[in-house]
Amino acid sequence: MLENIDLSRKLPKEEYKKAKGELDLKLGALQRRVKELSIPVIIVIEGWGAAGKGTLINELILPLDPRGFNVYTTLPPNEEESLRPFLWRFWNRLPARGRIAIFDRSWYRRALNDRVDGEVKGAALQDVFRDICSFERQLANDGNVILKFFLHISKEEQSRRFDKLCKNQATAWRVTKEDRKHNKQYEKYFAATEDMLAETDSDFAPWTVIEAHDRRFASLKVFNAVVSELEGRIQKSAHAQPVQPSQPSPQSLPAALTASVLDNVDLSLTVDRETYREKLQKKQKRLRELEHEIYIRRIPVVIVFEGWDAAGKGGNIRRLTQNLDPRGYVVIPIAAPNDVEKAYHYLWRFWVQIPKAGHISIFDRSWYGRVLVERVEGFCTEAEWKRAYGEINDMEKHLINFGTVLLKFWLHIDRDEQHRRFQERQRTEHKRWKINEEDWRNRDRWEEYKSAVEAMLFRTSTRYAPWTIVESNSKLHARLKTLDTVIGAIEGRLKS
Amino acid sequence: MLENIDLSRKLPKEEYKKAKGELDLKLGALQRRVKELSIPVIIVIEGWGAAGKGTLINELILPLDPRGFNVYTTLPPNEEESLRPFLWRFWNRLPARGRIAIFDRSWYRRALNDRVDGEVKGAALQDVFRDICSFERQLANDGNVILKFFLHISKEEQSRRFDKLCKNQATAWRVTKEDRKHNKQYEKYFAATEDMLAETDSDFAPWTVIEAHDRRFASLKVFNAVVSELEGRIQKSAHAQPVQPSQPSPQSLPAALTASVLDNVDLSLTVDRETYREKLQKKQKRLRELEHEIYIRRIPVVIVFEGWDAAGKGGNIRRLTQNLDPRGYVVIPIAAPNDVEKAYHYLWRFWVQIPKAGHISIFDRSWYGRVLVERVEGFCTEAEWKRAYGEINDMEKHLINFGTVLLKFWLHIDRDEQHRRFQERQRTEHKRWKINEEDWRNRDRWEEYKSAVEAMLFRTSTRYAPWTIVESNSKLHARLKTLDTVIGAIEGRLKS
Repeated sequence: MLENIDLSRKLPKEEYKKAKGELDLKLGALQRRVKELSIPVIIVIEGWGAAGKGTLINELILPLDPRGFNVYTTLPPNEEESLRPFLWRFWNRLPARGRIAIFDRSWYRRALNDRVDGEVKGAALQDVFRDICSFERQLANDGNVILKFFLHISKEEQSRRFDKLCKNQATAWRVTKEDRKHNKQYEKYFAATEDMLAETDSDFAPWTVIEAHDRRFASLKVFNAVVSELEGRIQKSAHAQPVQPSQPSPQSLPAALTASVLDNVDLSLTVDRETYREKLQKKQKRLRELEHEIYIRRIPVVIVFEGWDAAGKGGNIRRLTQNLDPRGYVVIPIAAPNDVEKAYHYLWRFWVQIPKAGHISIFDRSWYGRVLVERVEGFCTEAEWKRAYGEINDMEKHLINFGTVLLKFWLHIDRDEQHRRFQERQRTEHKRWKINEEDWRNRDRWEEYKSAVEAMLFRTSTRYAPWTIVESNSKLHARLKTLDTVIGAIEGRLKS
Repeated sequence: MLENIDLSRKLPKEEYKKAKGELDLKLGALQRRVKELSIPVIIVIEGWGAAGKGTLINELILPLDPRGFNVYTTLPPNEEESLRPFLWRFWNRLPARGRIAIFDRSWYRRALNDRVDGEVKGAALQDVFRDICSFERQLANDGNVILKFFLHISKEEQSRRFDKLCKNQATAWRVTKEDRKHNKQYEKYFAATEDMLAETDSDFAPWTVIEAHDRRFASLKVFNAVVSELEGRIQKSAHAQPVQPSQPSPQSLPAALTASVLDNVDLSLTVDRETYREKLQKKQKRLRELEHEIYIRRIPVVIVFEGWDAAGKGGNIRRLTQNLDPRGYVVIPIAAPNDVEKAYHYLWRFWVQIPKAGHISIFDRSWYGRVLVERVEGFCTEAEWKRAYGEINDMEKHLINFGTVLLKFWLHIDRDEQHRRFQERQRTEHKRWKINEEDWRNRDRWEEYKSAVEAMLFRTSTRYAPWTIVESNSKLHARLKTLDTVIGAIEGRLKS
């Protein structure tokens, strides 16, 4: 879930100040409502050393009434604490109804530090994840709002910050040997963090990763998430009245905050036709060899294509399969569910199409429809699509545990490119069947789809089943990248 | 969860016939309602070989309209199936909305046979439990009714049935080498079954263990469970109308069916005063030695006392602690939660009292209040107490994983004995404080409490934290048994 995070995100001072002022006022008002409605609130701040957790917490409490919250710093357990099961000290620090508890590090210490130190492993680690999920689920069922943030910075940035702190006598003490060691072990922690995020992200206690290189950006993103979540919960409460001051429209948020990882995709990538032809042939040949290999070795392969309308899914799939033995693969086009399919769980129609070991299934659109079109068009409830991320991750984990090679492609183009392609489709007679009213309607909801895509990429990019974003303004580049990725994944699997 | 199952339970033919006739009619009517309301129903029949799964399924489908159900027999996976992840074939067999799917064995094969055969172990076994829970939760969230039965017979009964089948040429083929091998491995399967039941029992897909020595009893218990569950679900459905034929009162059920494991507790057990005195002193001395030992070894001990009013909890706890070093233990009396406690999750007040490693906490009443008094008196919702079994098991597992010795006692007396004790309390001046109006009121709800106790003993008797039922009509016997059990558990832990 950390893979696609764009750490270069920034916020200009002026924009920050304006938005922050508004959010401060709202947060104060929300705290009063939370108290009136007896809602307990848990805010967990995790993140790298020197990522700015302390500063952030200071900001967070400034607009709050000090009688209504507690801040808890989680150090290594003291003697009293180490003589009890690890969740004990956190049960002791839960907020009473109507209060806010802010945790500077938390129970996740067990899944990070204790794991990297080798203290917790194997089945015991599974137990830790299970204990944490059960803990959070129980609290959520009991009415707690649970917000979890992970402040993310790069290894280099962390090292740079440590250096800076050391240079100043007043702050040098803050950098410990431990900190330096953690920086050296950054990759180990990174992997443990990825696991932790994937195993404990849920509809009742979701993670938000905060790009923390720019402190203004980090601060505003956290504030905005807290405010939205509390507003949502308060609105759902039975006797809720509108929150004062009245809610601002989302437009009042700085554009930088709502910017998406998709904005950073380099759509200028391209390739000349001659290179393309040459490479294409070579890669297609290689893929055919691999198709044979996986058949012999009985490895199942699942390839998922998602992307904007007119992003080139069809053409891409055609190039992928052009040279394959048709007995070894199947392309499964996914449209709206029919009546038979609607009589089952939404994942049913995908489960029944899972390939036999040794075969390739290519899904032209997929189960991700649940969190894309069904979410945006309101074909399922909010609770349903929020639950779906975890359900999909569970399904994909099941496939991976069986030994499946699973590839997920998001074919990305920008809005202008889509417009050009739509117009071309309308002009060209043999392409006209590809375009209809609905496509134009969907296009109008581009921004809504974009944030659905963003959430999908974040919540379902797991270590075991990451997304690949394919820059598709150039169809030629896109096709080669897809082929490359598939080949790489299968080769990797064959070697293991 | 199999420990307290009384396999001797029987049903006379006449009673069976009468009740069965009624249930047949109801089941047919319920199937029609289920179809109208588009509710998908999943019935899982697991159990020992020769426990009567086939016969039971035949009975179950007789009153049903054959156009509305499917029966699936789960054999070892065929080639098509073994080339896919293990849940695949079950996704393929899910009932459409409004249909009933009956599984003769199921996905639990993976947690039983494959585990005992050593094919699935360690972290992979954890994954299987997790996959199964996720699978069932997804289906339940999607509106499926899930009923899971485990048909239980003893090793001897199973062997006897195999012999009988073998004697008859027409049935001899049904007993395979595999079957005989499983009978020899009964204990291994038993342990795997215990784990399976504990790990996959949930509010959304609970297990019912069926005492299957008597086929009539087994059949009626299953029918009754199916009918109650479907009636409950249909009533909850928004536009539900009363089920035809009209619901019978619970009285129309044969008494044998509603009989409880508590009815079989041998309350005649007693001990003469002299033996008592002698043993008491010895055991108390031994416990004091152990108190020292666990302090040195830093082992935490949690002892839970639950039981009927006037069952002798107080006297029992006094004998337990009489000779202990007061610095090593604490007795925690639990009454109705106060205002501070009510401001938290119901488990909070117990979590914060968890003993330090090396110390003993004795709870006089406990977290089980949630599924006893709070359930019966309506102090919490049905969803809340149904969820609580799993929450409590999770908490206890957390304690066990930390190395805690956990003992849970149910002090059992019969209704007459309680009456005698109540009267004595009212007669004796220095005991009068112990009795009040509420005690008499609770006594009137004896049967309701009894079925709550029964459910508690079943759903929270796990391999890692089993209940001990203490026969308490004789206070002297009860005190010795408690002491014995505590000493045995601590000694066992010290040896391990």
